[in-house]
Amino acid sequence: MFEFRLTATDGRARAGELATPHGVVETPVFMPVGTQATVKTLTPRDVREAGTQMLLANAYHLALRPGEQLVKQMGGLHRFMAWDGPILTDSGGYQIFSLEGLTKVREEGVRFQSHFDGSWIDMTPERAVQIQNDLGADVIMPLDECVGFPCEHEAARIAMERSVRWAARCKAAHAREDQALFAIVQGATYRDLREACCREMVEIGFPGYAIGGLSVGEGHDLMKEALAYTAPCLPEDRPRYLMGVGMPEDLLECIGLGVDMFDCVLPTRNGRTGWAFTWTGKVKIRNQEHREAARPVDERCGCYTCRNFSRAYIRHLFAVDEILGPKLLTIHNVFFYNELMQKSREAIRGGRFGAFKTEALRGMREQ
Amino acid sequence: MFEFRLTATDGRARAGELATPHGVVETPVFMPVGTQATVKTLTPRDVREAGTQMLLANAYHLALRPGEQLVKQMGGLHRFMAWDGPILTDSGGYQIFSLEGLTKVREEGVRFQSHFDGSWIDMTPERAVQIQNDLGADVIMPLDECVGFPCEHEAARIAMERSVRWAARCKAAHAREDQALFAIVQGATYRDLREACCREMVEIGFPGYAIGGLSVGEGHDLMKEALAYTAPCLPEDRPRYLMGVGMPEDLLECIGLGVDMFDCVLPTRNGRTGWAFTWTGKVKIRNQEHREAARPVDERCGCYTCRNFSRAYIRHLFAVDEILGPKLLTIHNVFFYNELMQKSREAIRGGRFGAFKTEALRGMREQ
Repeated sequence: MFEFRLTATDGRARAGELATPHGVVETPVFMPVGTQATVKTLTPRDVREAGTQMLLANAYHLALRPGEQLVKQMGGLHRFMAWDGPILTDSGGYQIFSLEGLTKVREEGVRFQSHFDGSWIDMTPERAVQIQNDLGADVIMPLDECVGFPCEHEAARIAMERSVRWAARCKAAHAREDQALFAIVQGATYRDLREACCREMVEIGFPGYAIGGLSVGEGHDLMKEALAYTAPCLPEDRPRYLMGVGMPEDLLECIGLGVDMFDCVLPTRNGRTGWAFTWTGKVKIRNQEHREAARPVDERCGCYTCRNFSRAYIRHLFAVDEILGPKLLTIHNVFFYNELMQKSREAIRGGRFGAFKTEALRGMREQ
Repeated sequence: MFEFRLTATDGRARAGELATPHGVVETPVFMPVGTQATVKTLTPRDVREAGTQMLLANAYHLALRPGEQLVKQMGGLHRFMAWDGPILTDSGGYQIFSLEGLTKVREEGVRFQSHFDGSWIDMTPERAVQIQNDLGADVIMPLDECVGFPCEHEAARIAMERSVRWAARCKAAHAREDQALFAIVQGATYRDLREACCREMVEIGFPGYAIGGLSVGEGHDLMKEALAYTAPCLPEDRPRYLMGVGMPEDLLECIGLGVDMFDCVLPTRNGRTGWAFTWTGKVKIRNQEHREAARPVDERCGCYTCRNFSRAYIRHLFAVDEILGPKLLTIHNVFFYNELMQKSREAIRGGRFGAFKTEALRGMREQ
């Protein structure tokens, strides 16, 4: 049900197809983030028309509000949010460790205080899977223990090994064949830990492998380095998902290192603050220089925003606090990220990904 | 260029067609409010798909930001906001008298402090027309002097007579044949003043007549009464536009008294606060009763919102402060107001407006 098929390779870059119960996803793929069962400011139709194949929602947030039982009762997450394409839910491990002030990690699971109402919550691997079984996404993620950067080798080892045991418990608890439970590889920026984690996760066996714990402050170079030695330890015939990355430049580099799937808040979050991504670098729409600009955000772009609106109009919307401004830039940014993936796939299939990447990176640094 | 043609009458209710340079508008028509060149939370496509024929923007707000010269330079208001249908701009007289703390009225015009930056602004009839000539809407409105409720007869008379003189100055200043300058009838709730104002405005001669200064606190019954004696004083062959009204029930009553055009912030503003209008009365989406409601806001509604989303989902969006919630209810409410107009037109053409109105009012009071 979750067959992953490579259709082309170009160096270490891969193009493929991931089958899911809600359709086939062409990889490399970027998943916009819809934490609370909505990609902020967009309707599902906007999301689809911006070229989105698959999106991400957060099991932890949805378990708090409106509660996974309600979503289940409403027919599952796809029906609830009226998105009929594939969905991936993150377990919330990352949020628990990064957002919550007080966390107590034991072998059983993690106890933390809700950011919502301050109540104490016990999250276990089994509970994380049950929530996601109820939500009903196509791909679900195990509970893992995340560490920040920098992190001592010993602490990174303990967290990584616990993440392996938790992944095994998640697999044992997983109850739905129409959902794929991926693994998450941890190990900070230590090569021995990353390699060991890959070995152990692969031995347990999963239909896909995520690389977690990167883009947490280690910087572009260390991230690339970690990815360069981690990706080759993962099976060729399974999708590789780099969590929470990143800037367009990062995505191009990581595709070149063999990553198939991405998610990141950047296109949506930056869009809401007036930052547009383009093939010729960023556009800060609030800047005075755009006040009388009749041209669109990006002349080469085919999105709804660029086909219809001037920079001057969008700048006006931001100046007078009209939500249509953030919305129009979100549409544009999601379209741009999706087009970046589409052009990458085409380049890989054509055996010219290296040249495409070099050219695209040059363009983005142009401004 | 602005021919108005009655296609049917039913008692005092009228169905007609108003030709504009941006298309023919079927009346009775409701114009959603896009004060700052955007109907809050909606794209122009959303506005169109919700059945909107014509919308309203505010010349006063746009003159402050981004400035009418910029809009003109960007190709005019239609191009600027990417709305190719008819637009009406309000002059801002109402806003000046209702929003601004300090206003000084002299025969020349009104001096007031900007709500935006506190600077003193002189608004004259000539300036109001120049701004609107630059913005380029299809229908533009004169500067008038608004009074609140209650208002002494003497004060209402002075303001009404000044509004007549200002309307004449606006007509003299108006420089574009592709824009129709309407008159605004004032006179508070005094029959002699309303009738005199109509006589004098008609003598000056305008392609359409607005009724201003109602829905300012006088209540439903006094408004109906004023409308009942004002409308018959206006020419049969010109559109009648009741400014700033109102609730669905008000609109039905006012159509019955011969009004052709409406604008109001209610469908958009209430949508943003979680209040949906339906054929069976209001739905307050935040209420606990909708928590597990799988049904749409209105089962009989064909809007994007009702075709795709449950009350439970929209309530969730409001609960977690996601802008998609306000947006989905805005789409629904605008659709509802437009459908109310459409069904009214059909009923008038079929000679059964009275029965339709009675039935619709009964439904709305059902809940």
